[in-house]
Amino acid sequence: MASFRALTDLDHRTMTVLDKLDIPIVAAPMAGGVSTPELVAAVSSAGGLGFLAAGYLSSDAVRDQIRAVRRLTSKPFGVNLFVPGDPAIDADVVNRYRDRLEAEAALYGATLGDPVADDDGWPGKLAVVKDSRIPVVSFTFGCPSAALVSTLKRYVSDVVVTVTSAHEARLAIAAGVDVLCVQGPEAGAHRGTFANKDISDDLGLIPLLRRVSAVADLPLIAAGGLSHGRDVAAVLAAGAQAAQLGTMFLACKESGAHPLHKAALTDPSFPGTTVTRAFSGRPARGLVNRFVLDHSADAPHAYPHVHNLTRPLRAAAAQAGDAEAMSLWAGQGHRFATDLPAAELAVSLADQARDALADAARRLDR
Amino acid sequence: MASFRALTDLDHRTMTVLDKLDIPIVAAPMAGGVSTPELVAAVSSAGGLGFLAAGYLSSDAVRDQIRAVRRLTSKPFGVNLFVPGDPAIDADVVNRYRDRLEAEAALYGATLGDPVADDDGWPGKLAVVKDSRIPVVSFTFGCPSAALVSTLKRYVSDVVVTVTSAHEARLAIAAGVDVLCVQGPEAGAHRGTFANKDISDDLGLIPLLRRVSAVADLPLIAAGGLSHGRDVAAVLAAGAQAAQLGTMFLACKESGAHPLHKAALTDPSFPGTTVTRAFSGRPARGLVNRFVLDHSADAPHAYPHVHNLTRPLRAAAAQAGDAEAMSLWAGQGHRFATDLPAAELAVSLADQARDALADAARRLDR
Repeated sequence: MASFRALTDLDHRTMTVLDKLDIPIVAAPMAGGVSTPELVAAVSSAGGLGFLAAGYLSSDAVRDQIRAVRRLTSKPFGVNLFVPGDPAIDADVVNRYRDRLEAEAALYGATLGDPVADDDGWPGKLAVVKDSRIPVVSFTFGCPSAALVSTLKRYVSDVVVTVTSAHEARLAIAAGVDVLCVQGPEAGAHRGTFANKDISDDLGLIPLLRRVSAVADLPLIAAGGLSHGRDVAAVLAAGAQAAQLGTMFLACKESGAHPLHKAALTDPSFPGTTVTRAFSGRPARGLVNRFVLDHSADAPHAYPHVHNLTRPLRAAAAQAGDAEAMSLWAGQGHRFATDLPAAELAVSLADQARDALADAARRLDR
Repeated sequence: MASFRALTDLDHRTMTVLDKLDIPIVAAPMAGGVSTPELVAAVSSAGGLGFLAAGYLSSDAVRDQIRAVRRLTSKPFGVNLFVPGDPAIDADVVNRYRDRLEAEAALYGATLGDPVADDDGWPGKLAVVKDSRIPVVSFTFGCPSAALVSTLKRYVSDVVVTVTSAHEARLAIAAGVDVLCVQGPEAGAHRGTFANKDISDDLGLIPLLRRVSAVADLPLIAAGGLSHGRDVAAVLAAGAQAAQLGTMFLACKESGAHPLHKAALTDPSFPGTTVTRAFSGRPARGLVNRFVLDHSADAPHAYPHVHNLTRPLRAAAAQAGDAEAMSLWAGQGHRFATDLPAAELAVSLADQARDALADAARRLDR
């Protein structure tokens, strides 16, 4: 009976790109210039899975980056897209926040952007994904419709959706996706919640994996606060098929992150991270700096309106070399960031994970 | 060089009770009648480590429970003590909270308790611990002084302190303790923070283990939201020497928890858990019920004052069979609770953990 059951499970579960990786390490897509083609290709060439971040880029830039990755590696990689959300906002609250930030913008000689909604070039980027026949496409901030997932599967091998709860996992399964990326609240940068709302009692990554596993017979990628091969081993033991790391790759040589951002990750003068809407109008985890302290309490739920509003200000602060008004996205494991080359990091994470599992097995087999 | 380093590490790290367990499973101490001698003895007899909870009991009752465990098992077990905190409070705020709860008490025909401080019988319980020469003593809500730790070590094998941050871990190490119990924010019931304060940006259990490991060359017990052997395997892989579970044992046959509390853990009409001071004046994770929703925003930081204030009210609600005003402590894994006998649960957790590590190793060794 047991072996019959096992066979049935195998039948149901089709192979995904995760089955083909040499090492179960995924480099998180990091928008805003962090996930360079060099970073993505390095991780994929090392046997893991690199992800381009299409968010905030033009469709042409995405196409160029895909070509650049292909020049650097023949291994599979992915592209991540932001799913456009509900553009309805409370304009009064956003205008008050804009007024509040005027002095801040003046400080850096910047002019605030217009707090407008946009769809991040959604139709154009979907067209690029289809044209380019990339191996993997992943989505954040929502789930594409079942019809779109079905269409995409004619062009790409695997469709991944980022989920932060068992409820979102059920929606993604109903849409027919191949893989779930399970993001715990420990993760850096934007929470991948489908709706733009605060959740103060998010399940930690391990309980979240348990809850999602209970409703999903799909391969899972686990993300959130992982900083060492022991953490990779932990999520594999918890049932994930691969571990996704962002902040550790953000610090890598190949990452396009601002040098001040990289340096801040291990700077003990930053007390830690918090989740804030101050920069973008959507909850995101970053290092606590002056901007976060001064504006988090007043920041509205309005994405991408606030992102567009603060963009010139953040750029000016970066230009001025002032980390106190930059969005220093970071996961809870940030203190362990190093500047290793990405391939070396990926391989050493897998090696450490192997050792960690052997150590743990010895502890159990006494 | 590598083998020399390994030898040195072994030299430094003396054996603790954790090295002598057949299975790396700790049953969390649960005060208020939950951790019965039968529960503690069942887990220890199965090869794990059971813990009596001395909190809220008289010294005589603790002594009786220790004797009862010894009649049931010859295996090692532990006793957990609450470290008395700073009794200074804002009396006005506490009085306003008392006034607020008058109507609530009337609803259940109860008379509120006096919101007074007490030391939970600290000197008497320390005397019992020394007299009884129990194998393991653990502490929550603080760390005993180095002098006290040194004294205790003449009577007990291992002194364990519960920590929730790398800072607290450093303090416990400085006091000379043998083992750290690393409690993540996923854990049910009271947060073990040394000070009575809210921490909204607690590290999740996996990043917390990483941070504590970086400062502590001591054996670690990992606690918080663990509900399956896969979760046990995860924390062992992350570097813990044992996994501590509370909520899963609270649901066991041998647990003394109220039947309504046990039933509530898997009742889908409870939306989940939150951290509240409403019942005790100290942050604690429990199921969201009417009392939590009505009073959390107004509950002061005043422990054990508020605990003493609400005790008769909670008892009356339990008597009336109304779970909506009981403190339904629960960790984030509560949905997976079952009524297995405790020994069977402990052994199956270890078996599942072994399978989980083997599965994870296969995923890495492809």
